[in-house]
Amino acid sequence: MIVRQGKYTLKLTSQPSIIGNAAVAGKTEGEGPLKNEFDRIFSDDTLGESSFEKAESALQREAILRALDKAEKTPSDIDYILAGDLLNQCIGTSFGIREFGIPFLGLYGACSTMALSLGLASVLVEAQAAQTAIASTSSHYCSAERQFRQPLEYGGQRPQTAQRTATAAGASVVSAHCPNKPSVSAVTFGKIMDLGIKDSNNMGAAMAPAASETIFAFFDDTATTPDDYDLILTGDLGKVGASLLLDLLKKDHGIDLRRHHADCGLLLYDAEKQDVHAGGSGCGCAGSVFNSYILRRLQNGELKRVLLVATGALMSATSALQGESIPSIAHAVLVETPQQQPLGGKS
Amino acid sequence: MIVRQGKYTLKLTSQPSIIGNAAVAGKTEGEGPLKNEFDRIFSDDTLGESSFEKAESALQREAILRALDKAEKTPSDIDYILAGDLLNQCIGTSFGIREFGIPFLGLYGACSTMALSLGLASVLVEAQAAQTAIASTSSHYCSAERQFRQPLEYGGQRPQTAQRTATAAGASVVSAHCPNKPSVSAVTFGKIMDLGIKDSNNMGAAMAPAASETIFAFFDDTATTPDDYDLILTGDLGKVGASLLLDLLKKDHGIDLRRHHADCGLLLYDAEKQDVHAGGSGCGCAGSVFNSYILRRLQNGELKRVLLVATGALMSATSALQGESIPSIAHAVLVETPQQQPLGGKS
Repeated sequence: MIVRQGKYTLKLTSQPSIIGNAAVAGKTEGEGPLKNEFDRIFSDDTLGESSFEKAESALQREAILRALDKAEKTPSDIDYILAGDLLNQCIGTSFGIREFGIPFLGLYGACSTMALSLGLASVLVEAQAAQTAIASTSSHYCSAERQFRQPLEYGGQRPQTAQRTATAAGASVVSAHCPNKPSVSAVTFGKIMDLGIKDSNNMGAAMAPAASETIFAFFDDTATTPDDYDLILTGDLGKVGASLLLDLLKKDHGIDLRRHHADCGLLLYDAEKQDVHAGGSGCGCAGSVFNSYILRRLQNGELKRVLLVATGALMSATSALQGESIPSIAHAVLVETPQQQPLGGKS
Repeated sequence: MIVRQGKYTLKLTSQPSIIGNAAVAGKTEGEGPLKNEFDRIFSDDTLGESSFEKAESALQREAILRALDKAEKTPSDIDYILAGDLLNQCIGTSFGIREFGIPFLGLYGACSTMALSLGLASVLVEAQAAQTAIASTSSHYCSAERQFRQPLEYGGQRPQTAQRTATAAGASVVSAHCPNKPSVSAVTFGKIMDLGIKDSNNMGAAMAPAASETIFAFFDDTATTPDDYDLILTGDLGKVGASLLLDLLKKDHGIDLRRHHADCGLLLYDAEKQDVHAGGSGCGCAGSVFNSYILRRLQNGELKRVLLVATGALMSATSALQGESIPSIAHAVLVETPQQQPLGGKS
C-alpha cells in the first residue's frame, strides 16, 4: 500500500525489492576507486559503435541485460521499463532499449533520472500496476561534451568548478518484496528549484538547493534525522555542490549532514589523480555508483539505510545560450538492507 | 484499485476523473476548425517572449493555469505534475512550470506525451500516491522547426508527407472519481516499434506501427472491439500515418477501425485551406485537441467512450543525421463520459 507521509513523501508499506542490478562503465571510470565494483568496464569508450550516441545506447543496453540476468529474468518477464538520459530526445535510452519489446515509460530528469526511475518503478510495483519493472539510465562523456559544451577535438579548457560526465550506465530490476534483497521503503519526488545560477560549468551550485529542499522534505515528512541513516547519497553535486548542500541544510534547516553524506560524483573518480575537476556528473554517475558499490553494501548489511538523492539540472544548450538560469530538481529514494528490520520512524 | 487486464492493460477500478482541463493555441491553430474550442488563442506566436522556446514555456504555463482554474485548484493543491515536450532536455516544460513549486515527474514520450502523462497521473491517483495531479504538454511550430528541421528564415520546402508541429498546449487535472466529470478507466502503455522508416518528413509512417500494436493490445486485453467505443483517437499520425494505421490493423489483426477512428493531427487544421501538408503533429497537437474538443464532448455525453492513443517518434536530429531509423511508441488512455455507466467488457 502507498501511504502519503507528510506533504511530499510516499511510504511503500510492502517494500518492493531490487532483485537484480548492474552497472557498467567506461575506461576512465574503470580506472577509478570503484574499478572492482562494476559488472563490466569497456576499455574502448566507443564500445565498437560508429558514434558516441550509439555507444551510450550500447552501454545502457548492457547494464539492463546484466541486471536482468542477475534477477534471473528475461525482457518478456518485465512489465515496464522506466528510463531516460541526457541526450536530446533521450536517444541513449530509446535506441538502447528498442529491441526489448518492453512497454516503455520515458522519463526526463537529467542527472536525477536514476532516483526518478527507481522511485517510480517502486511505486508502480507497490501499486500492483507492475509485477516487475526496470529502472535504468546512462550517460557518456563524449556524447554529452559535444552536445552541451564543445566538440572534444576543440580541446577547450574547463574551469575547476566543471564536472566530468560519467561514461556509465546503471539498471535496477524492481519486483515484489523479497526478504533477502535490498528494498525500497519510501520515495520523495522533488520540485524544481532555481536560485538563478547561470554557469553551466558549475552545475553543482545550481543543483545544491534542489537537493537541500528534497532532503529537508524527506526528514520533515518522516520525522527522522541524518542519524537514522547510514548514508545520504547525492547523485552528482561534486565538490562545489556537496559543500554548498551541507551549508544550505545547516543554514536553512539546522540539519547537519556532514557525518552521513557522500556524493556519487566524488566516489566515482580519484580527484587527485584523475583530473576530473569538481567530480563526476551525468545520469550514469548516480546510476552506476548506486547499482554497484552502494547496492552491494546494502545487500551485505554493511550499509543499512541509504537515501539516494539524485539531482538534475534541467537546462539545455539553447536555454544557456539564451541567458537563462538553471532550474534543478532532486528526487529521493530510501533503500534498506535485507539484513535488518525496516525503519518505523524516529526512534 | 489497479487491476492488470491481459498482458498490457491497467484497469483503474475507481476511475479517476479529469476535474479540470484547458487547451491554448497559436494563430494558425486558432484559425482552424477548432477555433471555438480553445481556452485561449494567441495571435502573436511569440506570446511576447524573447525566444520561441520561452514562448512555448509560456504556452504550457497558460494551459496549466487555466486547467487549475477550471478545477478550482491552486498549485499548492497539486501533488505532482507529470509533463514533457519535444525540445532538447524538455525545456518547454521545465521553464514553463518552474515557478509552481509542484513536485515534478519529467516525462519524455515525444508526441505521445499527453497520453503518457494522463495515463501515469491517473495511475498515481488510483494508487493513492496522489490526491490530485496535473498532466500537461506543449509544442511550438517555430521552436520545433529550428530544432528538428531548418531555421524558419531558410524557407525550405517540405514534402507533402511532412506534418506541421502544432503551436499548442494542453493540460488535465486528475483527481479522485467525480460522478459529473469524464473519467479514466484504463491505461495501456506501449512498447517501442521500429520498422526501419528513416524519413523524418514522414513521421506518420514511422508511428503507425506503434499505434497499431497498442490499439491491438488494448482490444485484446479488454476483449472489446472498435464498436464498443465512440472514438479511437490517435495523436498525430496525420493523413499518411492514419491511412497506414487502418491498413495495418486490418491486415495484421483483422480489425476494422474505419468507422471509429479520428486523428488529432487531422482535426486541428483544415487540410484544404491551411497548407499544413499531411496534418498536425507535436505534443501540443493531441494535448490541445483532447483537452478541448474531445473532453467537451465527453463532458456533455456526445461522446461516451474515447480511447486516446497518442503516438511519439523517439528520434533526434542527431540520430537522423547518423542514418538511424525512427523508433516509435504509442500509449492509450480510455476516457469515459460521466453521462453513462462504465464499460464492463464486451457486451
